[in-house]
Amino acid sequence: MTIKYISPFKPKKFIEFIPKNLNIYTFHAGFKRKKNDLLIIRFKKPFRISAVYTKSTLEAAPIKWDKNLKSDFCEVLIVNSGNANAFTGVKGLKEINKYITIAAKVFKCKKNKIYVSSTGIIGEQLDSNLIISKIKLIKKTKKTGLLNAAKAIMTTDTFPKIIKEGININSHKIDIYGIAKGSGMIAPNMGTMLSYIFIDTKLNKSEIDFLLKRNVENTFNSITVDGDTSTNDTVMLFSSNHDNLNYKGKRSKLIDLISKKLEKVMSNLSMQIISDGEGINKLIKVNVVKAKSKNQANKIAFAIANSILVKSAINGEDPNWGRLIMAIGKTLEKIDPAKLSIKIGNQKIIFKGNKKNFKTRELIKYMKNKKIALDIDLGVGKYNKVVWGNDLSHKYLEINSEYSS
Amino acid sequence: MTIKYISPFKPKKFIEFIPKNLNIYTFHAGFKRKKNDLLIIRFKKPFRISAVYTKSTLEAAPIKWDKNLKSDFCEVLIVNSGNANAFTGVKGLKEINKYITIAAKVFKCKKNKIYVSSTGIIGEQLDSNLIISKIKLIKKTKKTGLLNAAKAIMTTDTFPKIIKEGININSHKIDIYGIAKGSGMIAPNMGTMLSYIFIDTKLNKSEIDFLLKRNVENTFNSITVDGDTSTNDTVMLFSSNHDNLNYKGKRSKLIDLISKKLEKVMSNLSMQIISDGEGINKLIKVNVVKAKSKNQANKIAFAIANSILVKSAINGEDPNWGRLIMAIGKTLEKIDPAKLSIKIGNQKIIFKGNKKNFKTRELIKYMKNKKIALDIDLGVGKYNKVVWGNDLSHKYLEINSEYSS
Repeated sequence: MTIKYISPFKPKKFIEFIPKNLNIYTFHAGFKRKKNDLLIIRFKKPFRISAVYTKSTLEAAPIKWDKNLKSDFCEVLIVNSGNANAFTGVKGLKEINKYITIAAKVFKCKKNKIYVSSTGIIGEQLDSNLIISKIKLIKKTKKTGLLNAAKAIMTTDTFPKIIKEGININSHKIDIYGIAKGSGMIAPNMGTMLSYIFIDTKLNKSEIDFLLKRNVENTFNSITVDGDTSTNDTVMLFSSNHDNLNYKGKRSKLIDLISKKLEKVMSNLSMQIISDGEGINKLIKVNVVKAKSKNQANKIAFAIANSILVKSAINGEDPNWGRLIMAIGKTLEKIDPAKLSIKIGNQKIIFKGNKKNFKTRELIKYMKNKKIALDIDLGVGKYNKVVWGNDLSHKYLEINSEYSS
Repeated sequence: MTIKYISPFKPKKFIEFIPKNLNIYTFHAGFKRKKNDLLIIRFKKPFRISAVYTKSTLEAAPIKWDKNLKSDFCEVLIVNSGNANAFTGVKGLKEINKYITIAAKVFKCKKNKIYVSSTGIIGEQLDSNLIISKIKLIKKTKKTGLLNAAKAIMTTDTFPKIIKEGININSHKIDIYGIAKGSGMIAPNMGTMLSYIFIDTKLNKSEIDFLLKRNVENTFNSITVDGDTSTNDTVMLFSSNHDNLNYKGKRSKLIDLISKKLEKVMSNLSMQIISDGEGINKLIKVNVVKAKSKNQANKIAFAIANSILVKSAINGEDPNWGRLIMAIGKTLEKIDPAKLSIKIGNQKIIFKGNKKNFKTRELIKYMKNKKIALDIDLGVGKYNKVVWGNDLSHKYLEINSEYSS
């Protein structure tokens, strides 16, 4: 991996956060040549966990492992980059068992309270010794912050993804922290390869599940880089089970407040992921409105955002709206062409089936922007969907021709 | 369109054919800057026709027109390139009516015996006068052959697609001629933008429909360039209704003989199309075997052939087989990893779930070939599917960033 490429959306600066209930350690374990590639988080007290995983039917070993834990609580999280431990069969699971066994001893916790994730190349056996040797060093290792955690889980990412939001409730403050990684092989479900979100309050099982599932749809499941879904995609939400908020009002109102802020965190992380899509030059926002069903809105929005032809046209700053027609039509969704309206930026291209006399020069100028908005009004129902994607660039091809070899 | 690019699979020479029952005319009508862009075929006697069209729900005007003809016979075929007459609303149909009305007068035939197709840019109104002015010149125009017909319907194609096959039956010879065009926006259904096949024998309605539908699945519907389906895709099969073969044996046996040869023609045209896929460097043959259903075999074969990540890896000559795992998994088809075997060329990569010690150097050498074979054995059933695709290249991006502007 010697691609020199930095996303034009890379933030100018990053802030380090040190959440109070997490002991964070990062290492260079040797999965990657130089950079840190191992993250270990020791939760000071057990956190309640809820997780959503890839729907890939060839899910990686860590996902099989985590699903099988039969525990709602997490005391240790171990994530490595550089090797996905995917399609590694029974041996892949055995390797996890080896490093988990050592971790359970070192951290003095039960094996079923240790969650694991991996990201990186598919199909190579993971050598547990690389992780074990670092676990054994943990007592001599300096704790670090969340920004370094975000850095340790990167693969082809060109910047770390991190966010913090606070909610003030009854003069209490609840902090929500999140990190993520992902830049290619990004498409629902999930929208990311890996994301970990930590919330400083006690939530019961049904609340934490509700909060994660409610917000994953419009965030991680609404972005797409290449329409390809990883074997390892994972989003985990952790709540500090000991921090019980003394809230006077209705519990459902509190959950609503938290949900809104959590959505902000998850949406922000998704946007960071899509903004670091491999080889990205431009962000594409596809906004489908007035569909006759949720499924129709989804299908059309993703068909546009995933079309190689649409993505290449936007890369070339070409307002080739005929390809939007193509992408809508190929979903096989029955729509009424006479009710269809299309806007690119502020320019009306089609209004209720008729081509408008749009200003070509302004449209071409608009295409030079870093963010391109495509608005599709189907005019038949009440369902909407926003999907964020990015363009397909020469850099994407370069990055993805040189990944494994 | 100033892209200088020629497919490495372009045939070295082309043979011109002059089918006996067709008067073929080609013109430069003005849809394209320089090259011929209009094909008119006057059938000397009415031919029976069967057609298969795109399933796009935003089908172009010519497809609406043809479907509405309510006639099994064709006397004139008019095809233009350079303008797809797609998403042109009621006006698009009116323009067809204008040139059909003139054609009916000039050729002294009924309007419902005239079939039309268009290919080219989507969403621009088609000016019927460009076609009408050429129809009026028809009596002064020299007839030409099928190769020129194939050339007149090209868009981004880098070579014309043409084939002839003969069948000897009872010392009679039946000729089958075919032409096609297509190089981008290629994916089922259909697998091509346009194809016309002419067979020199009388077939009844059910026979001609059977022959087309039977063979379209494994030919035009088994190729994919970019997973994008055009608004204009059309395959038409014509039989010279007057040439009645005096066949002594069972009729079904004759139809079987014809079917085999027709499959050869359609398969050959599909391969010509995929071999001229925009920016192609390499052909990819995805062969899925032992799936538990036809649908499963199809889904997995197309998921691999359409994956941007798989296509970029092959473009970069990178044997990144982890992406095959990813593509199989993302179909959400439940398969048994322990029964899965994968070969790239002759190298066994996975055998019944276990990674083999394949020869990396030989594998890398194999990736330099122009044709890459990916064999996926699911080991669970009896259904197979072969799909042909091609790699995703920098040239593809160039071609598709510069098409409309």
